[in-house]
Amino acid sequence: MTGNTTAAAATERHAAFLDDFATLSTFGATERGGVHREAATDADAAQRAWLGEQLAARGFRVCFDRVGNQFGLLDVVPGAPYVLVGSHLDSQPFGGRYDGAYGVLAATHAAHRLAVRWREAGATPRYNVGVVNWFNEEGSRFVPSMMGSSVFTGLLDADTALDTRDLRDVRVGDRLAELGQLGETAPVIDDVVAYAEIHIEQGRSLEESGHTIGLVHATWSAHKYFLTVEGEQSHTGSTIMADRRDALLGAAHLTVLAREISDALSTPEAPLHTSVSQLTVEPNSPVTVAREARLHLDLRSPDEAVLERANAMLHERIPAIERAARVRISVSGAHHWGVRPFPAAGVKLAAGCAEELGLSHREIMTIAGHDSVNMNCRVPTVMLFVPSVEGISHNEGELTHDADACAGVDLLTEVLDRLAAGALATG
Amino acid sequence: MTGNTTAAAATERHAAFLDDFATLSTFGATERGGVHREAATDADAAQRAWLGEQLAARGFRVCFDRVGNQFGLLDVVPGAPYVLVGSHLDSQPFGGRYDGAYGVLAATHAAHRLAVRWREAGATPRYNVGVVNWFNEEGSRFVPSMMGSSVFTGLLDADTALDTRDLRDVRVGDRLAELGQLGETAPVIDDVVAYAEIHIEQGRSLEESGHTIGLVHATWSAHKYFLTVEGEQSHTGSTIMADRRDALLGAAHLTVLAREISDALSTPEAPLHTSVSQLTVEPNSPVTVAREARLHLDLRSPDEAVLERANAMLHERIPAIERAARVRISVSGAHHWGVRPFPAAGVKLAAGCAEELGLSHREIMTIAGHDSVNMNCRVPTVMLFVPSVEGISHNEGELTHDADACAGVDLLTEVLDRLAAGALATG
Repeated sequence: MTGNTTAAAATERHAAFLDDFATLSTFGATERGGVHREAATDADAAQRAWLGEQLAARGFRVCFDRVGNQFGLLDVVPGAPYVLVGSHLDSQPFGGRYDGAYGVLAATHAAHRLAVRWREAGATPRYNVGVVNWFNEEGSRFVPSMMGSSVFTGLLDADTALDTRDLRDVRVGDRLAELGQLGETAPVIDDVVAYAEIHIEQGRSLEESGHTIGLVHATWSAHKYFLTVEGEQSHTGSTIMADRRDALLGAAHLTVLAREISDALSTPEAPLHTSVSQLTVEPNSPVTVAREARLHLDLRSPDEAVLERANAMLHERIPAIERAARVRISVSGAHHWGVRPFPAAGVKLAAGCAEELGLSHREIMTIAGHDSVNMNCRVPTVMLFVPSVEGISHNEGELTHDADACAGVDLLTEVLDRLAAGALATG
Repeated sequence: MTGNTTAAAATERHAAFLDDFATLSTFGATERGGVHREAATDADAAQRAWLGEQLAARGFRVCFDRVGNQFGLLDVVPGAPYVLVGSHLDSQPFGGRYDGAYGVLAATHAAHRLAVRWREAGATPRYNVGVVNWFNEEGSRFVPSMMGSSVFTGLLDADTALDTRDLRDVRVGDRLAELGQLGETAPVIDDVVAYAEIHIEQGRSLEESGHTIGLVHATWSAHKYFLTVEGEQSHTGSTIMADRRDALLGAAHLTVLAREISDALSTPEAPLHTSVSQLTVEPNSPVTVAREARLHLDLRSPDEAVLERANAMLHERIPAIERAARVRISVSGAHHWGVRPFPAAGVKLAAGCAEELGLSHREIMTIAGHDSVNMNCRVPTVMLFVPSVEGISHNEGELTHDADACAGVDLLTEVLDRLAAGALATG
């Protein structure tokens, strides 16, 4: 009977998770099955209110910090530090319903299951547990991305974050105040001893290798550039070609170059992902040669040597583009990181939990940035992936099968249990 | 004494024109000496109100038509049709102060000089004269350009124009109603027997050949395309390169191709001007491969054979771009015209006036579109150019020397006098 009861209880827990996930997916829902809920929009505010209700109803203390990170705290050990677990609810424009949101809801359910488990067993963990919904991970409306966790970990100044404005000149600090999402009673990084996050892979390697769980052991290295192309405004019709200084043409050459760099240097063993995104053109009128273009150009690889070759090729080729389009190209912002490991002890801990649950698993690197990448700079961090169907992400068609999603919540629960018991504690 | 008196009167007329032009240039003035007054903005409304006052003070009847074209009518011959003379006051974003505005003010002064001349001489022309300030010639805020004159000449449906919205969803019809710039008592095309317009060249051929006046005898031929590039939204980091369908990459290839076509086919004898402008990217987020890009691609040449070779090369090369970026490229809109002549009789008439005034002149083609190109489809039209310093246009640095600007007003006055006397009348 115990086996059946346990199986029935597991089925019930899975159903509860999937029900809540279906509800969560209604906030900012799009016609094609995705979600459109950028940070601090009305849809984001509505889902945050809903999450707060869910956490409060399960006995969590809900609060915000000074940059709008939302917490649900389970204070079971008075005065003890926290193990945080979470992700982000905000989405890309017309994004998928799993990216971030899956991890926040998984964290909520995992922490709640542990609260019930500890209460029923009369047990007390070593640390308190906090669910966190980071503010503005996506960075599509307010740049940079991973804003909330960057401030939390001291990588970004709070005032800089609060003074950030979107393209319609809405200021982060004003909007968060308006929404009542600023507070002072939440934990700070010094109150935190460990962090865990689960996320969809956003690639298709788990699906192709047939594993349910990815244990993230490192991030790809990356060079991210914010480039400005300066030309001169003129008439698209009457200006003779030799006189043109076309900023859009310069930006187009950079966009084509990014792809050429990948074509030249990427191999199956050491892939190189390159892209240009968010191209802004001034004045962007139909009959005016652009005076300025701004764009993001990213180079990413798991192999630092390949990344450096790509970076060298980019810089070698820029002068020729400047001559061809008669423009000036300058780096307005740059961000670089090498291959960054997650703690091996955390990978081993998560592998042990997966074994116990009978979940197939393999180590994997993350290409995309996550809030966990920030937290990993400050506290022992465990990062877990579940498969993405066909690797589709930042797209309304994003999908993770229910069985994989539920397996991930089960695994996160066991990992969180061990972290709360002090498994990765360094103190 | 007569000679001196005449010279003094001319100097006074020139000073009056330059004074008014300085005042006109304050509307939407930018720090760098340009103007920023797109159609139906507050700055455009303010300059239209000012123009109305200037016209009314000179005895013109001021009115608007159903799409916001502004008229100042000099009804000297009851019931007779009109010779219209004008241009447009709206500008590109951060545009120059001469483009369009010079022609409207020149028309106002020319018509007023004739009113005085006729009154003092007790003479009556054959036709009435109307100054016109066309609505939205630039098309930077509301697409298409030359909107007001297109509706006036029946080339664009009035309802289509009124239903056009800018990027902030402001509707032309609503905004014009709000500004009180819609009316029903203005002339219609059937009331018009001829049209004249003077404009800055926006190129540097007059400056290089040392002529004060360009007599426009034809327009360049053009293919203008509005292209849509369809890709698929995905993650700029984690999506493997082979899976990407990058709409921005497709747009970049088209932008580079446009320039390559000019490089390949343009010659000094038969120049070919090509451009891509107003590139819009969806969703234009920093970490998202674009799902869609839309852009304007123009090919222009005075040689129709060269233009057709360019057009063929464009279409031949598009499939390779579609394969390289894994996108679909479609033509959402196309506009083509061949080399269009202005009436030779009008060129001859203007040449005669220039001779009498002692102004150096040569025949020239227009590359840019003008309201006169629309009017030339319906009534005998005379189009005049004055030099642009260094050919700079759609730029805050746009400049026409005072002496050239004043010479142009003098010439326009004489041309208008002959048109009002019936010089090009076909009836």
